[in-house]
Amino acid sequence: MTSDRRTRLDPSERRAQLVELGVHELAEHGLHDLSVETVAARAGISKALLFHYFGSKRRYRLAVVAAVADDLLARTEPDPEQPPDVQLRQSIVDSVEYVSARRQLYLSLVRGAASGDAEMREIVDRTRSALVARILDGATDLGLPSDDPLLPVAVRSWLALAEEAIIAWAPDGPVSLDRLLDFVESSFYRTVAGRP
Amino acid sequence: MTSDRRTRLDPSERRAQLVELGVHELAEHGLHDLSVETVAARAGISKALLFHYFGSKRRYRLAVVAAVADDLLARTEPDPEQPPDVQLRQSIVDSVEYVSARRQLYLSLVRGAASGDAEMREIVDRTRSALVARILDGATDLGLPSDDPLLPVAVRSWLALAEEAIIAWAPDGPVSLDRLLDFVESSFYRTVAGRP
Repeated sequence: MTSDRRTRLDPSERRAQLVELGVHELAEHGLHDLSVETVAARAGISKALLFHYFGSKRRYRLAVVAAVADDLLARTEPDPEQPPDVQLRQSIVDSVEYVSARRQLYLSLVRGAASGDAEMREIVDRTRSALVARILDGATDLGLPSDDPLLPVAVRSWLALAEEAIIAWAPDGPVSLDRLLDFVESSFYRTVAGRP
Repeated sequence: MTSDRRTRLDPSERRAQLVELGVHELAEHGLHDLSVETVAARAGISKALLFHYFGSKRRYRLAVVAAVADDLLARTEPDPEQPPDVQLRQSIVDSVEYVSARRQLYLSLVRGAASGDAEMREIVDRTRSALVARILDGATDLGLPSDDPLLPVAVRSWLALAEEAIIAWAPDGPVSLDRLLDFVESSFYRTVAGRP
């Protein structure tokens, strides 16, 4: 298959292919174990060519993490045909599923070594802000007090609760996935909407 | 006063004095603006002597941050003479006050550049764990289901909510301090205790 893999791609196709390979690698490894050698080998190109496209290992990682962030937002995008509470529940389920499959990556981004990199933090912050904006956009439909200045603070805080719950939860521990999902979901209504 | 300041201190006194000066500096400046020159000058010693005591600027910063963490834990220690709900409220008030006076430091520790340093993260994690343990120790008094395996997850998640609320809140914005405190406190009962 080597000849296939060595197919000449134009620069934007090659870049997209390398980022996609990196996204797959990250599902299994943490950010710091993302091997540019492995990715280059899978693409059938040299490591030097990979660097040619991205400039440095750090810039390549940034491109991969940005792609993961876009991917997370796309996969947790609610279905507008559904009622708002079903949309919220589904987004929570999708997020937990997405994160569970990339736990090491998630940890290194949310509170690991990666957060020492300002551009990496910027990607994480931008993703958080997009998730918050999505909820605020649907505030009225969710029965939230959209003109209350506390609302953006409450939504951001709930998102931090949700992130931490996913980190603190052990997939094979005594708390079932359903209970975790119920906790995250009910916390939303109880804290953000102020409903019991 | 120079002669006073140049008083010979034994090594442990000198170390404590330098850490204390650093803690005061940090109340005004972020972690990366902590100037060892200023601290050494205030102690009436040379920068070289400061390095002699701590080994490096990084190790000095770590010692100062560890002292701030101990200080936070001490100042938010609840009064056991008070009823449990009053203790919780007072701890929240004390924490917000403590953090507000050190906002830049708090930001750099919780999600800033400092989190790129594993030992720095270790201090932050240890402090979080101590705050969680304090709540779990008082779980029965607070009417929490102390044998529920979800409880530690819920407490950690609420703490993340509280941290984020303090960061997202603007002291001179439209949300009053009292409302912020009420939000953080009521969120505790609504999420951790499952009470409305």
